[in-house]
Amino acid sequence: MTKLWQKGYHLNEQVERFEAAQNSVLDARLVRHDVWGSLAHAAMLQHIGILTEDEYNALQEALCNVLELDTAHEFLVKPSDEDVHTSIENYLAAVAGSAGKKIHMARSRNDQVLVALRLYGKEQMHKVAAKLAHLCTTLLAFALAHKDVPMPGYTHMQRAMLSSVGLWAASFAEALLDDEQLLTAAYTLNDQSPLGSAAGYGVPLNIDRQYSAQLLGFARVQNNVIYAQNSRGKIEAAIVQVLAQIMLDLSKMAQDILLFTTAEYGFFSVPQELCTGSSIMPQKRNLGVMELVRARTQTMLALQQQILGIVSGLPSGYNMDYQETKRPFMEALDLVQESLDICSLVMSKLTVNIERILAACSFELFAADRAYELAVAGAMPFRDAYRIVGAEVTAQLDRHMPLPAESQEQLVARLKVRNHLGGAGNPGFEQVQQRLQEAQAAWQERAAVFKYTVEQLVGRCSIALVEE
Amino acid sequence: MTKLWQKGYHLNEQVERFEAAQNSVLDARLVRHDVWGSLAHAAMLQHIGILTEDEYNALQEALCNVLELDTAHEFLVKPSDEDVHTSIENYLAAVAGSAGKKIHMARSRNDQVLVALRLYGKEQMHKVAAKLAHLCTTLLAFALAHKDVPMPGYTHMQRAMLSSVGLWAASFAEALLDDEQLLTAAYTLNDQSPLGSAAGYGVPLNIDRQYSAQLLGFARVQNNVIYAQNSRGKIEAAIVQVLAQIMLDLSKMAQDILLFTTAEYGFFSVPQELCTGSSIMPQKRNLGVMELVRARTQTMLALQQQILGIVSGLPSGYNMDYQETKRPFMEALDLVQESLDICSLVMSKLTVNIERILAACSFELFAADRAYELAVAGAMPFRDAYRIVGAEVTAQLDRHMPLPAESQEQLVARLKVRNHLGGAGNPGFEQVQQRLQEAQAAWQERAAVFKYTVEQLVGRCSIALVEE
Amino acid sequence: MTKLWQKGYHLNEQVERFEAAQNSVLDARLVRHDVWGSLAHAAMLQHIGILTEDEYNALQEALCNVLELDTAHEFLVKPSDEDVHTSIENYLAAVAGSAGKKIHMARSRNDQVLVALRLYGKEQMHKVAAKLAHLCTTLLAFALAHKDVPMPGYTHMQRAMLSSVGLWAASFAEALLDDEQLLTAAYTLNDQSPLGSAAGYGVPLNIDRQYSAQLLGFARVQNNVIYAQNSRGKIEAAIVQVLAQIMLDLSKMAQDILLFTTAEYGFFSVPQELCTGSSIMPQKRNLGVMELVRARTQTMLALQQQILGIVSGLPSGYNMDYQETKRPFMEALDLVQESLDICSLVMSKLTVNIERILAACSFELFAADRAYELAVAGAMPFRDAYRIVGAEVTAQLDRHMPLPAESQEQLVARLKVRNHLGGAGNPGFEQVQQRLQEAQAAWQERAAVFKYTVEQLVGRCSIALVEE
Amino acid sequence: MTKLWQKGYHLNEQVERFEAAQNSVLDARLVRHDVWGSLAHAAMLQHIGILTEDEYNALQEALCNVLELDTAHEFLVKPSDEDVHTSIENYLAAVAGSAGKKIHMARSRNDQVLVALRLYGKEQMHKVAAKLAHLCTTLLAFALAHKDVPMPGYTHMQRAMLSSVGLWAASFAEALLDDEQLLTAAYTLNDQSPLGSAAGYGVPLNIDRQYSAQLLGFARVQNNVIYAQNSRGKIEAAIVQVLAQIMLDLSKMAQDILLFTTAEYGFFSVPQELCTGSSIMPQKRNLGVMELVRARTQTMLALQQQILGIVSGLPSGYNMDYQETKRPFMEALDLVQESLDICSLVMSKLTVNIERILAACSFELFAADRAYELAVAGAMPFRDAYRIVGAEVTAQLDRHMPLPAESQEQLVARLKVRNHLGGAGNPGFEQVQQRLQEAQAAWQERAAVFKYTVEQLVGRCSIALVEE
Repeated sequence: MTKLWQKGYHLNEQVERFEAAQNSVLDARLVRHDVWGSLAHAAMLQHIGILTEDEYNALQEALCNVLELDTAHEFLVKPSDEDVHTSIENYLAAVAGSAGKKIHMARSRNDQVLVALRLYGKEQMHKVAAKLAHLCTTLLAFALAHKDVPMPGYTHMQRAMLSSVGLWAASFAEALLDDEQLLTAAYTLNDQSPLGSAAGYGVPLNIDRQYSAQLLGFARVQNNVIYAQNSRGKIEAAIVQVLAQIMLDLSKMAQDILLFTTAEYGFFSVPQELCTGSSIMPQKRNLGVMELVRARTQTMLALQQQILGIVSGLPSGYNMDYQETKRPFMEALDLVQESLDICSLVMSKLTVNIERILAACSFELFAADRAYELAVAGAMPFRDAYRIVGAEVTAQLDRHMPLPAESQEQLVARLKVRNHLGGAGNPGFEQVQQRLQEAQAAWQERAAVFKYTVEQLVGRCSIALVEE
Repeated sequence: MTKLWQKGYHLNEQVERFEAAQNSVLDARLVRHDVWGSLAHAAMLQHIGILTEDEYNALQEALCNVLELDTAHEFLVKPSDEDVHTSIENYLAAVAGSAGKKIHMARSRNDQVLVALRLYGKEQMHKVAAKLAHLCTTLLAFALAHKDVPMPGYTHMQRAMLSSVGLWAASFAEALLDDEQLLTAAYTLNDQSPLGSAAGYGVPLNIDRQYSAQLLGFARVQNNVIYAQNSRGKIEAAIVQVLAQIMLDLSKMAQDILLFTTAEYGFFSVPQELCTGSSIMPQKRNLGVMELVRARTQTMLALQQQILGIVSGLPSGYNMDYQETKRPFMEALDLVQESLDICSLVMSKLTVNIERILAACSFELFAADRAYELAVAGAMPFRDAYRIVGAEVTAQLDRHMPLPAESQEQLVARLKVRNHLGGAGNPGFEQVQQRLQEAQAAWQERAAVFKYTVEQLVGRCSIALVEE
Repeated sequence: MTKLWQKGYHLNEQVERFEAAQNSVLDARLVRHDVWGSLAHAAMLQHIGILTEDEYNALQEALCNVLELDTAHEFLVKPSDEDVHTSIENYLAAVAGSAGKKIHMARSRNDQVLVALRLYGKEQMHKVAAKLAHLCTTLLAFALAHKDVPMPGYTHMQRAMLSSVGLWAASFAEALLDDEQLLTAAYTLNDQSPLGSAAGYGVPLNIDRQYSAQLLGFARVQNNVIYAQNSRGKIEAAIVQVLAQIMLDLSKMAQDILLFTTAEYGFFSVPQELCTGSSIMPQKRNLGVMELVRARTQTMLALQQQILGIVSGLPSGYNMDYQETKRPFMEALDLVQESLDICSLVMSKLTVNIERILAACSFELFAADRAYELAVAGAMPFRDAYRIVGAEVTAQLDRHMPLPAESQEQLVARLKVRNHLGGAGNPGFEQVQQRLQEAQAAWQERAAVFKYTVEQLVGRCSIALVEE
Repeated sequence: MTKLWQKGYHLNEQVERFEAAQNSVLDARLVRHDVWGSLAHAAMLQHIGILTEDEYNALQEALCNVLELDTAHEFLVKPSDEDVHTSIENYLAAVAGSAGKKIHMARSRNDQVLVALRLYGKEQMHKVAAKLAHLCTTLLAFALAHKDVPMPGYTHMQRAMLSSVGLWAASFAEALLDDEQLLTAAYTLNDQSPLGSAAGYGVPLNIDRQYSAQLLGFARVQNNVIYAQNSRGKIEAAIVQVLAQIMLDLSKMAQDILLFTTAEYGFFSVPQELCTGSSIMPQKRNLGVMELVRARTQTMLALQQQILGIVSGLPSGYNMDYQETKRPFMEALDLVQESLDICSLVMSKLTVNIERILAACSFELFAADRAYELAVAGAMPFRDAYRIVGAEVTAQLDRHMPLPAESQEQLVARLKVRNHLGGAGNPGFEQVQQRLQEAQAAWQERAAVFKYTVEQLVGRCSIALVEE
């Protein structure tokens, strides 16, 4: 197929292969986003008198066809086309006649790909936010159901102080809600229109960048045209950095669950349907998905490093290096969504082995409590009380003379007196629930506005196709 | 010196050395932040009746002494003390009598270090924001002064289209202003009080976490006590991720300046006082600082990776691994500030070699312009015009028959017609200036409130010591 | 399809999807390696009396079928099969009757995948070494052809001292030959047989690990069965670390070529067939492949980080995290091969613009030479001569009074006196050529032995299928 | 102090600070290595007639003084000196008269730093190898002492098959011995003399690079002078990549020990002197050093990434970016040595809690054994036996009807039948011991030769100062 820049020579095939790489596969995901961008650009060209109404209509019709073909998975991006932008322009040139050859007026593939990736990013962030909210909902439901289940709290992987299963589960919800704030900031950065930056230096034509930005639902125009190009990879990195934060939280959850479902801890169980077996050991029930969440967190960190590494040190202006950021960006968005989903699944199926978890609430968890009691009762400075209790406990541990375990009622009573803000006796689940609902509502609003904008943009085409 | 947990045995010296590492050096920076946290904690303990007024006063006086010693660089954190928190508690025990041994009631070193790092982070982010704003101011001044200086715009390191020196400089200001938005988001995340989370599981005492949070000027309490501990490293990473974004922009600026000051480009010059020489080649003038900004961007990425790598996959609850995130966090904050400063210096001294830069604005930069002219004049589809011009230019390049260079007036006229939003003829410097001023004002307000809060907190101590 | 561990329950589909990920696509590459491993294992089982000769023959025949199907791209690894090992065992069970259900005696998928990846690694390293040698050959041919072409040598991107095009090109060959040494070390590490480690704890059967190791051509048995499993990812990382070294060299070559083909340097040209154009600018000839080599070096570093990040901190024994190292390992091997090939292509097509390169050999390149002359002639200490010349050159540069350029003859004469080892006048190309031939011969020998071993192993199957 | 390139202007102080950074601290470690390099260079200059014997003697005496001052920690590298090379040349100029100003003839700081770092690298690698061997010795002693102590083997953190404590400990020794092979390869790469490459383009003087290389004990001259400079950072990276491999192994050991010393596993204990306590919880005994080894493995990966990131994409020739690789290189070498030492300490103090570890060898560990028995006894295909046993075990696990534990004798008998190579019954400790001794001897030889070379070089100076 013809390249857009075709001018009388043939590209070396090895070069073509090296440059195409997985580009055509990745670009297959961007068909509709490029169509949306093309519709807005064409509308702007008509608005400023470069396209006639007929030409615009011809383009709109042809672009609708592309959307329909894409829905039917019949719009192909061939490797020899270089990219989706070429495929679509070639299609338009074939179908919409001279209008098709006019659509590239005042734009460049460089800003097309920026526009497509920004729109793709928005759409995917809506989904990330929804899945994040769903996991928070699942975690809070679990937390509420296990609000008063005592559990050892660990530091340095050693038993430390009394905690509760509810507090443990809700801690991840709060972490994720903090991530949601970062996601909103990255979303805002992404929500600016690069369209009209052309090859990074604008065009000698009086185009209306605000007009196309509004049609596409961007909050603002990304002003400086050089910066628009230089932000390729940068904004993707800003988004992936937040995804890395989300994975950090999931990796901790996964590590905890893997630990707490070992034979040795035995605090939690998962149903067999979530476990895979071994080819050699008939007894095995492995919670592979949690191992994979742990591993894929490292993959996410590598994707983040990849984008940042590629972008850093590049001189101003478009460099083909940027092309290499597309894949890690898309993979990172996929990876986080799948991981959020799998964590929701596991959390929704997790059961607590009450006997094992109570048995683990052994006497040394209460050494600090006893030091406090001593300090309060004896009006003794804490550090002195600490040393007295320390000597006692050390002796008990060394002589293997543990104190008898406390009853569930005693343990629950101990939970209740941890009644300061955020403690096991006052974990504030309702306030977290409230915070979650507000975040969720804000994202649903963003997604709805986006969907509406796209529907307006595609106009008479009957296909909107926003991923939800 | 006595460890806080000292209980009748001696720690192996090799272990002590391995664990101390650079901790005492790093902790020397946190003396005042720990004092502030201790003042707030002590005030809260008095508020809820655990400390008497006399005890509180004794503590306040002793903590004031620590601040004074610290100002005089006379408060030492000895390696055998493990950390600044131990040094201070040991000092209090020695100076403030039994009150000194009571201050640790209801808190843990784990939340002390969290508090100190949050306060340190705030203080440093105020400085980062100020330096970022200063660089933006310098860039915009340079941009304004060189608004109408033509310059080749490059893509793929090849001459692409006409650009301007002003547009180039302002592109970095806009990038940095986007970073400022991310910094605000990270600041907000950091602006929550972990105090009262103790070892990560709260305490069996009715402490008032909101009271101490308010005294410290935190926007809110970080609710869930487990999450408070689990956010160690995570929030540092969120901050460093933004610093990495800033360095990305600086590395691009550095790479451009290195390129544009080569003998071959020769667009810009810097005075000799910014350059170092060679031990062997008498003629050398090397702009080493820009090379170091480029290199230290990679250092920043490594620091980011270090924190994220350490934190990922850890089980819930404090792990000593977290200690290893303190150094990269502090180094990252230093590194970005020094780099912002050096970039301001270089930009303030950069001069433009007008003859070299005009000579580089060769005819091929206008190939796209000519295609547009042809398309508009001849009502020819752009793609057809592109192919006609393409054939012409290819022939001229191949036969080394360049068109004569345009005059400065002609080039400036070409800049002027790039008058759409963000183009060289309409670069929107005033709006960017406006945006900068708003951001700057917001950060100055944050810093002022912080300073006021600390002054209130240290009360009768005459020393506030907020870094500005 | 049935999982190997199928025992009466259905795996949750979301879990199945999450775990399969791209595994089936990746595993399609490992069909023949698993067959080779299976043939060796079956032969060993017969050797120790666990399989009868008939059973062995049935297995061999069925495994030959698998090879044939694989050659015809007709052996499918279905996602529901989990992996290639399951697909093959299922096929054997279907085709070879009870022998098929016996082949898994005394082995585990964990050691199957180790074996397959080791064999895959060997095969690919043979190819990497061949491509590396080919690039060295191309570089040395270019170096020889341009032995006496003067060229400025740069430090800090500023003109430093006289160099030659030949010296420049050969520097990469020597770098790559150093990499070859590291590759050999990684190869040796990979060249040990994990077979028989089973799930990482061996089997309660007297298997003969040396027998199967020899059949597979491994240099030795990887002794400790726990270490065999723990080395998953570790050995892959050792290989990828070397590939990262190779990419480091290629990225430097790419950066140099991008710089030296700019309009401003103009030292080198590449034919248009290697360049891509712009959708908007008719004149553009972009050497995208070199930009991609530069970018993919960062991808390689990320792949290295991914593997190391996944593996670090895992407890002993197989963890499903390891599965995530397969993809970056394979991608890294592909990436380096494609990059070596494209660099060979570019180097074979690179031409030198003699006029531009001579013109760049300006007077300041010889400041150190003049200091030496002064020192030798005047018996003056070097540092004094340096300062005298320094003052002169500074004045000339500041007053823009360059000395006249030297003629090509004068420059070549200057090259000739750099006649110490490794200098432009004595670059030692023949010795490097010699070193290359020895390295090449060693790798060809390794590849030939491997091919022979596989041919022996597959025996009466007529298909060997070693990638060359 | 005067810079070597001082020529009539003052360097901006902010630039001086930015460039010096920690350089003077780091360079304080390189005093003797630079002296060695200077001695060899001066000897070569005399050898080719550039220095007189008197001048050489004056230099030798002055350089001896530097060594003595350095031994007494009285040779200072001032920040204003830029680096150790300047400090030494300034000292020589002051003390050795005109000979001091002649020593820089035919060399550059760029190759001085290369030489110093290569020698530093050698010296440190000798120490790394010795510490690695010491840890292997400790591990093998522990393995031998616990050869027949049964222990559950885990996969996916779930109980898998029977293993032994000896097998577990020896697995790390074998991993480290594989690393030793990689270290040898990196050592060989480092063992080439860059001296004489000057600023990367040689000198117009007939210097004898082989002469100085031999004096310094390098195995060969690094031929191509451009490659010599381009290998800065590259060879450091090659070394650090091996150190990362070592840390990988240590992180696994650390993670295992942390897991096996939890209250829940309780397999191992460490004496209290290795543990730190908590400021709040009197009972805590935290094995912080193992947490730090786990964390510092991530630090090592970040250091590796830092060096590779800095070096990648740089154009040929010295760039100041390289300076930034010195610190991570030195830190990596320190970090690995401290970590190896601490692991030796922990392993030498680790005790096994025999009751807990036997109790953990529960019936499901033998499910595969039973399938094998069934397969052998019943001549039943393994896969069928697997399914039968699978159904039984599943039922037992689900109904919480575990089989009774086996006695220690039964367990040991089971270990014994794992008598294939590398299995618990035939772990091959003697062969590993043999391999260790050979490796150790090779490194001791290298270190001895190096020490002898340095002693010859420093000649009449009475101080050699090789770190051992």
